Amino acid sequence: MRLKRKDILAIEELDRDELEMILSSAQSFKEVSERDIKKVPTLRGRTIINLFYEPSTRTRTAFEIAGKRMSADVINISASVSSVKKGETLKDTAKNLEAMRPDCIVVRHCSAGTAHMLAGLLSCSVINAGDGAHEHPTQALLDIFTIRERLGRVEGLKVLIVGDILHSRVARSNIWGLRNLGAEVTVCGPPTMIPPHIERLGCSVAYHVDDAIADADVIMMLRIQLERQRATLFPSLREYARCWGLSAERLKKAKKDVLIMHPGPVNRGVELSPEVVDGPWSVILEQVTNGVAVRMALFYLLLGDIKED
Amino acid sequence: MRLKRKDILAIEELDRDELEMILSSAQSFKEVSERDIKKVPTLRGRTIINLFYEPSTRTRTAFEIAGKRMSADVINISASVSSVKKGETLKDTAKNLEAMRPDCIVVRHCSAGTAHMLAGLLSCSVINAGDGAHEHPTQALLDIFTIRERLGRVEGLKVLIVGDILHSRVARSNIWGLRNLGAEVTVCGPPTMIPPHIERLGCSVAYHVDDAIADADVIMMLRIQLERQRATLFPSLREYARCWGLSAERLKKAKKDVLIMHPGPVNRGVELSPEVVDGPWSVILEQVTNGVAVRMALFYLLLGDIKED
Amino acid sequence: MRLKRKDILAIEELDRDELEMILSSAQSFKEVSERDIKKVPTLRGRTIINLFYEPSTRTRTAFEIAGKRMSADVINISASVSSVKKGETLKDTAKNLEAMRPDCIVVRHCSAGTAHMLAGLLSCSVINAGDGAHEHPTQALLDIFTIRERLGRVEGLKVLIVGDILHSRVARSNIWGLRNLGAEVTVCGPPTMIPPHIERLGCSVAYHVDDAIADADVIMMLRIQLERQRATLFPSLREYARCWGLSAERLKKAKKDVLIMHPGPVNRGVELSPEVVDGPWSVILEQVTNGVAVRMALFYLLLGDIKED
Repeated sequence: MRLKRKDILAIEELDRDELEMILSSAQSFKEVSERDIKKVPTLRGRTIINLFYEPSTRTRTAFEIAGKRMSADVINISASVSSVKKGETLKDTAKNLEAMRPDCIVVRHCSAGTAHMLAGLLSCSVINAGDGAHEHPTQALLDIFTIRERLGRVEGLKVLIVGDILHSRVARSNIWGLRNLGAEVTVCGPPTMIPPHIERLGCSVAYHVDDAIADADVIMMLRIQLERQRATLFPSLREYARCWGLSAERLKKAKKDVLIMHPGPVNRGVELSPEVVDGPWSVILEQVTNGVAVRMALFYLLLGDIKED
Repeated sequence: MRLKRKDILAIEELDRDELEMILSSAQSFKEVSERDIKKVPTLRGRTIINLFYEPSTRTRTAFEIAGKRMSADVINISASVSSVKKGETLKDTAKNLEAMRPDCIVVRHCSAGTAHMLAGLLSCSVINAGDGAHEHPTQALLDIFTIRERLGRVEGLKVLIVGDILHSRVARSNIWGLRNLGAEVTVCGPPTMIPPHIERLGCSVAYHVDDAIADADVIMMLRIQLERQRATLFPSLREYARCWGLSAERLKKAKKDVLIMHPGPVNRGVELSPEVVDGPWSVILEQVTNGVAVRMALFYLLLGDIKED
Repeated sequence: MRLKRKDILAIEELDRDELEMILSSAQSFKEVSERDIKKVPTLRGRTIINLFYEPSTRTRTAFEIAGKRMSADVINISASVSSVKKGETLKDTAKNLEAMRPDCIVVRHCSAGTAHMLAGLLSCSVINAGDGAHEHPTQALLDIFTIRERLGRVEGLKVLIVGDILHSRVARSNIWGLRNLGAEVTVCGPPTMIPPHIERLGCSVAYHVDDAIADADVIMMLRIQLERQRATLFPSLREYARCWGLSAERLKKAKKDVLIMHPGPVNRGVELSPEVVDGPWSVILEQVTNGVAVRMALFYLLLGDIKED
C-alpha cells in the first residue's frame, strides 16, 4: 500500500480514499508504540529531515519519534541555529538539503504556501508540519483519527470548532477533512476571528457558543496563539475565557458524551478550564498519542517500499 | 536484576542495597565504552527523552551517549526551543510527552521538586538530572562510583566537601549517599554558604579549610555557580579562591594520595588552581567517564526487561 | 585501507597519496547515498561528536548524515546550549567530551588553530570543520572531488578563486589541495581582501576579474561573510557585485564549459547572479552531495577497523 502522491501538503488535496488509507494505516501503527520494543525496521536506511522555522516541542518530537520507531535516520534543523542567519533563501536551503539525499523533509514555517513551494522544488517527499495560517494536515489527521477511534465514525457527526478561526491552520485543515468524510462542521468565535465567506468551505457559523454547544458530538477548541497575533482581536484573556472558553458549567449544555479536543499547548483557564482539560470529556492526550501513529503511517505510505496492490 | 522502583529522583530515597546494585551494575557497563564497538542491544526499541530546562553539555551528553550505546532512541528537548515559550505548564508538557510513550524522561529543572512532581504524574520512568538546589542523584552516584573504584571502598572514608553547600544539589546528593554507605562527611565553605542545621544530614561542619583538609581521603570541590547566584555571597572570586580554593600549596597539608573531585565545569583558578585540576590527585575526568557508565546502569535497572531474581 | 594519521586538520598537511586515497574512497561512498537503503554498518558502535561553536546548517548536517549512514552514534553539541555559558575553557570541554569515549570529534570554531589544539590534547580523532580564517579541509576535499569527478582530473587545470581571499579558510584549504594535485591556482578579489605574500602558497594573483576569467577551467566564488567581517572592506554589496560578482554577461568571457563553484550559502545577486547560480555551469548542489561522500570517506579512513594493506 502506498499513496499515489509524493507529498502531504494540505488536507484540501486529499480525497476520501486517501484519507481512509491514512487513517487505517495509522490504526496499524498505533500498536507499535504500545509494545515494549517500540521499533519496526520499515524505514531503515531512510533519512528524514525535520526543518522547523517555528519553535515546536510536540510536533517536532512526534515526527522525530515516529521516524526513529520506524528505524529511519532523523535529522533536526531548527531555524535558530540554521543558515537563516546567513541570509540564504529558503529555496536554496531546501535545494541544499535535498542534495544530501533525504527521503523526506518535514517543514514548519510561518508563511502559508511554504510546503507547496518546497514540494514543487524537491524530488524528495515533503510533509507540511504547519505553514502560516494555511494548513496543518497532520494535526487534522490525528484529530480525525481520534474522533473515528472514539466514536466509530466521522460521517454524520456534528463537529463544533471554537476560537480564532481566522488565524488557525488547524481549523482550516480540519474543516476540509471532516467535510470530506461527511461530518457537519460549525465554526464559532469572536466575529473578528471568523474569516468572511468561511461558509464556502462547507461549514456553518455560530456566534453564540452556548447555542452551538448543545448538539455537538465533538468540540474542538483552538489555541489562542498569543505569540502570533499582532493586534489584539479581543479585549482580554479573561473576557475571551468568559465568552468563548469551555468551563464545566458551560459544558452542562452539551451532550453528556461530547468529545473535547484541543491541539495543544492549552492555555489553561483561557480556552478550557482546568477541570475540562483534565475531565472525562477530554481526549487531548489521546490526540498526542495518535499523532505519533498518524506520522508513522504517513512516513510508511510515502517512503515505504511496499509494492502497490 | 532490576530496581524495585520506577524512578531515580533522589539519593535520599535509595537504600544501601539499591546503591550497591547501581554501583555494581555501573561497573559492568563501564567496559562497554572501552570497546571498539561501544554498543549493546539492551534497550533497542525503548525511547528516552532528555528534557532539559537548564543548559548542560556534560550531563545531557552523558545521558544521550549512555542511551545510544544501549541502542535506545534518544530525543533531546531543550527549554529554549520548547513550548515553554508558548506558556504551557510543565505538567502539561510532561503529560504530552508521556502520551508519545517514552520509556524514560530525564529531566533537569531549576526548581526543586520538579522530578518528583513528574514522577508522580507519569507512568514512565523519570530520572532527576538536577532539580534546583535539591538533588542531582546521578552526579552523586558517579562520584561515589569513582571513590569506590579508586579507593576500593566507601565505608569509613573521610570525605570533605568544599564550597557553596547552600545552593548545591551535588553536595546534598553526595551527603545522603556517602553517609548511607558509611563514609564520614564534612562540609566546609564560607559561613554564608553553609545551610543552618546541615548537621542534621549526618555531616559535620568545618569553617577552616586548612584544618579540614588534613585528614580527608577525598576532597570534593563544588562549582561556584556564578550564573545561578542572585546575590554575591562572597567579596570576589579572587577572595574566594584565596580562602576556599585548592592550590598545590594548600594541598601540602593533605594526605599524599587524597582524591580531588569536581563535578565540572571547573572555574580554573577559582575552586581549583590549574596545577591541581591537571595534577595527579585529580579524578575529574574519570568522574566524567564513570558518568556514562552510571547512566547506562540506571537505564538498564529501570528499563531493562531482565526478569527479577 | 586506513589513513596513517589520527586527525584531519588541514589540507596543508596531507600529501598527494593521502588526498588521492580520500578522493577515491569518497567515490565509493557516494553510491551509498544514491541507494534506497542509505545505510552501511561500517561504524556501528562508534561515537561521533559534532562540536560546533559557529552556526552551520550545511556542514553540521552533512557530517551528521554521513555518520548516521555509516551507523555511528552522532551527538550534536552547539555552543549556544553548551557549557560555554558557564565559563569552561575549550580545552576542558574537549577533555570532558573525550572522557565519554567518542571515536571522533568534529569541531568548528571561530579561532584559527582550534582543531590542532584539540588534536594535540585528545586521543580520539579530530576533524576540522572550519577554524577561523585558517582551514576548512572537508570543504576543499569536496570541492576537489567535484572538480575531479566533473573534469576527470585536477592536474594541469586552471582554477580561479574570486572573493575575500584574506578571510577565507575555504580559499586557503583549496589552494593547498589544488596545488598539491597539480592545478594552477589564481586568486582574485578587491586588493583589501588579498593577503600580502599570498603568492608564497604557490598561486598567482589577478586584480581584474574579466581578464582572469578567460582561461579558467574552474571558477570558485567565495562567500562574502557579512556576519563575520568587522570593518567594511568594500563600498557596498552592489559595488561588490558589479566589480567581483559573476553574471551571465561576465561569463561570456569564460570558457563555455567552465565549472562554477561556491561553498554556500550563496548571497544571490552578490557573488553570483541568480541565473548563474541556477545555470548549467553551476555545480553548487553537486558540491553538497559530494560533501556527504567525502565525510563518509574520512570517517571510514580514520575510524574504520579495516586492516591496512
